[in-house]
Amino acid sequence: MLTAVDRRIGVPLYMQIRNQVRDLILSGDLPAGARLPAERELAASLGVNRTTVSSAYHELFADGLVEGRPGRGTVVQPRPSLGVSRREDILPEPLPWNEYFVALHEQARDPLIRQLVALCAQKDVISLAGGLPAPDLYPLDHFAAAIDHVLGRDGRVLLQHSPTEGHSGLREVLVTLMGERGVVASSENILVLSGSQQGLDLIARALIEPGDYVVVEAPSYLGALSAFRAAGARLLAVPMDEQGMRTDVLEGLLPRYWPRLIYTLPTFQNPSGRVMSLERRQALLSLAQQYQTAILEDDPYGELYFAEPPPPPVKSLDRQGHVIYLSTFSKLLFPGIRVGWIAAARPVVDRLASIKQFADLHTNTLAQWALTEFIRQGWLSEHVLTLRREYPIRREAMLNALRELTPRGLRWNEPLGGFYLWCHLEEGLRSRDLLELAAKHRVAFVIGEAFHADGGGQSAFRLNYTYQTTAGIREGMRRLAEALTAMMKRKQERQGPERESPRPIV
Amino acid sequence: MLTAVDRRIGVPLYMQIRNQVRDLILSGDLPAGARLPAERELAASLGVNRTTVSSAYHELFADGLVEGRPGRGTVVQPRPSLGVSRREDILPEPLPWNEYFVALHEQARDPLIRQLVALCAQKDVISLAGGLPAPDLYPLDHFAAAIDHVLGRDGRVLLQHSPTEGHSGLREVLVTLMGERGVVASSENILVLSGSQQGLDLIARALIEPGDYVVVEAPSYLGALSAFRAAGARLLAVPMDEQGMRTDVLEGLLPRYWPRLIYTLPTFQNPSGRVMSLERRQALLSLAQQYQTAILEDDPYGELYFAEPPPPPVKSLDRQGHVIYLSTFSKLLFPGIRVGWIAAARPVVDRLASIKQFADLHTNTLAQWALTEFIRQGWLSEHVLTLRREYPIRREAMLNALRELTPRGLRWNEPLGGFYLWCHLEEGLRSRDLLELAAKHRVAFVIGEAFHADGGGQSAFRLNYTYQTTAGIREGMRRLAEALTAMMKRKQERQGPERESPRPIV
Repeated sequence: MLTAVDRRIGVPLYMQIRNQVRDLILSGDLPAGARLPAERELAASLGVNRTTVSSAYHELFADGLVEGRPGRGTVVQPRPSLGVSRREDILPEPLPWNEYFVALHEQARDPLIRQLVALCAQKDVISLAGGLPAPDLYPLDHFAAAIDHVLGRDGRVLLQHSPTEGHSGLREVLVTLMGERGVVASSENILVLSGSQQGLDLIARALIEPGDYVVVEAPSYLGALSAFRAAGARLLAVPMDEQGMRTDVLEGLLPRYWPRLIYTLPTFQNPSGRVMSLERRQALLSLAQQYQTAILEDDPYGELYFAEPPPPPVKSLDRQGHVIYLSTFSKLLFPGIRVGWIAAARPVVDRLASIKQFADLHTNTLAQWALTEFIRQGWLSEHVLTLRREYPIRREAMLNALRELTPRGLRWNEPLGGFYLWCHLEEGLRSRDLLELAAKHRVAFVIGEAFHADGGGQSAFRLNYTYQTTAGIREGMRRLAEALTAMMKRKQERQGPERESPRPIV
Repeated sequence: MLTAVDRRIGVPLYMQIRNQVRDLILSGDLPAGARLPAERELAASLGVNRTTVSSAYHELFADGLVEGRPGRGTVVQPRPSLGVSRREDILPEPLPWNEYFVALHEQARDPLIRQLVALCAQKDVISLAGGLPAPDLYPLDHFAAAIDHVLGRDGRVLLQHSPTEGHSGLREVLVTLMGERGVVASSENILVLSGSQQGLDLIARALIEPGDYVVVEAPSYLGALSAFRAAGARLLAVPMDEQGMRTDVLEGLLPRYWPRLIYTLPTFQNPSGRVMSLERRQALLSLAQQYQTAILEDDPYGELYFAEPPPPPVKSLDRQGHVIYLSTFSKLLFPGIRVGWIAAARPVVDRLASIKQFADLHTNTLAQWALTEFIRQGWLSEHVLTLRREYPIRREAMLNALRELTPRGLRWNEPLGGFYLWCHLEEGLRSRDLLELAAKHRVAFVIGEAFHADGGGQSAFRLNYTYQTTAGIREGMRRLAEALTAMMKRKQERQGPERESPRPIV
């Protein structure tokens, strides 16, 4: 039986009719062959327009639930035959899951990266691979005190749900922190994230449709490339020089591709360690304004400078809301706590929050409250000072080892902050081959190819100097030097049978 | 200058050539009008096939970077003119973000739901709306002890990154817990989530393409409807009766729509409180097997039974991997901790983990370790016993208030577990109108429409009995009864001017 339609609800009248008739058919209350009322008749009895009933019937036709028969009107269709056995005693087949999934835009992961992860998990391997802070420097006592304090004071509140945009106390603390970084923001400009990787994913989902172009630096952060690719982006890799992203190349590219997003890590870039100059930051912003393109500024390392502070964030120069600023506590404190944030124009925060709402409701509340307390106590600033004092010592240990131990032909940068050295083998040698040898010598790093969106980086590799102690760094570098020596030796033995060094062609 | 191509890397040769030439053009090193080498010539000097160079040039044509000119060969195109002013002194325009976003599949949220959230946040309002556990029963001391213990013992490890699939200790604990629920699993079948909402999102991203059909129950959980809609799903709502989802309707629907997923909350369903009978569970699974369709079984409330245990999960009957089982600690412990999990076939865990990898890397590590310790100590089982003892008392308080206070014409269920009463006003009255009156009386609930995928539920509403103490419940119900009385009075005053009660039509 069809109940009346209700004009006061949000569902269109024809949908209400369609849904009710559909359920009657599917449940068998209207059996195959049964006749639906004539459109005019049903319209009159429901007090709706005849076109409304027409639309409802049209939907039912489209669904294959009814058909028109000459002289009989609109008639319920028989159930389609299944074409597979319905006998109960036949054993069911397993669901073939791998055919069942939606195709992933992101290509299959390089098996070497998987092997690298497995390698780093082995106990006797010294990993210079991960982008991890120093666990021996963790401010564990302060963090435990912050947790005890907030659990004791507000446990019954803070273990409940909290707003999708983030705990209001943390958003206020982040407004102050952004101010210290030169960015004027209010709480409404802050979105708390379950780690900055979530920010990359939310932004990709908000801005990118399959086939859209996204500009990235060559090289760039692996996790960002994955998130953009997963959304179906086509990546345009812009080369860098000592000043950061080549804005002259970007300028040529913008009017040809009209990318949706320009992704940059301007400060102590991952993996290159480079710092974009102030002039480049201004040029980048100006280009984004001219072409009305969004910039995503990823800044996990900006506070970890060892000498002069770096230039201010691009976001601090942004008066018209083109820049989405992304940062995290993973590099300053602990990655396991999974808290990052975005500072952006209000519509961006609103849209990303509405996606986050169905992605994970909100970020872990205990972590947010504990961080708020931790920062309010001044313990974050204190810890950052410790890191600025300790990390240069580790960097020096690594640089000294490079100078002393490694054979000629290896080049590297000497970054003034951040987490990484970016090294280049001499041309013709591949870091992929070095990693294979390094694994035998029980030391790990990340190969340069992983950071390149569309080729390149074969001779490069990234070393992290923050995770290991200086003793660990020295031993790791000793092992790496052995692997390098073995590689050079191997190269000399079979001097260029496979290929010579590259020649200029154009 | 073009360097040689490298056959040993994963990037196709024509892409390597395309990328190098593109950068030369974009940077201006190859200016407008410059001639590219003839295909045959370049092929010879690079040692590649001529078709490889052809393909590279074809890409450059397609990108509008070069064109063929009669008698001149392939020539670099001038940069497109911008069509907007490039004068530096013109003030940049703000980025029009709301036009810039990708269209959301999910429709705009009902303003009444937003108002409801705002209403519940007001201090003097008694909320019977949220699906929240009782904060006064939280095992805070045990949880704090678990955190202290793991931070003290393993702080430097547990605050680092952890595997995307979840902390191995927690996965082991969950294998045991699944066993107690009748489901045989190993660690590889478990994926730890940042709350069960993340599970809904990951599954939607893995299985649903825009336009795909998904079966849901009518009514069903709001957050699931959002996640499926966001992925572009068309929802097919199957009605329920006292035994749960109507599998007779489902059976009619499967061969017509071939849905990608059947979403069910079989045990103490949200919002209806219903329990699917064992026979229906078997019929549901059998249909999924016949039609090779995946089932998503969402089970947040299964352990919270007040009398006899409910039938075992559908997953416990599943021998062929059709069922993805989803659960959470949000209802058993605290929602703010954001930890849920999936138990499913290995390919499902692998695929969802590879999406989670770029969605948020991994779930908060501290929360995972603390939960592991908490469960190993037996404190979860202990707490569940407390809840099974306390929640029926609150449910009774609410049922008594309903019986004593409310006017005739209101119907409700008497669930044997879970969090909710599901109430129906007499036909013709709308819970939306009741909520407006309830807001004036400072009490809140959720209207039935919110739980319906495509209309329906106008006379229904959901009451939660776990969050408030019995005193809070009694006062909340007193206020609700006042609102109901006011509504009935208003109805009598203007007896049916707008519309009469519905009549059977078909």
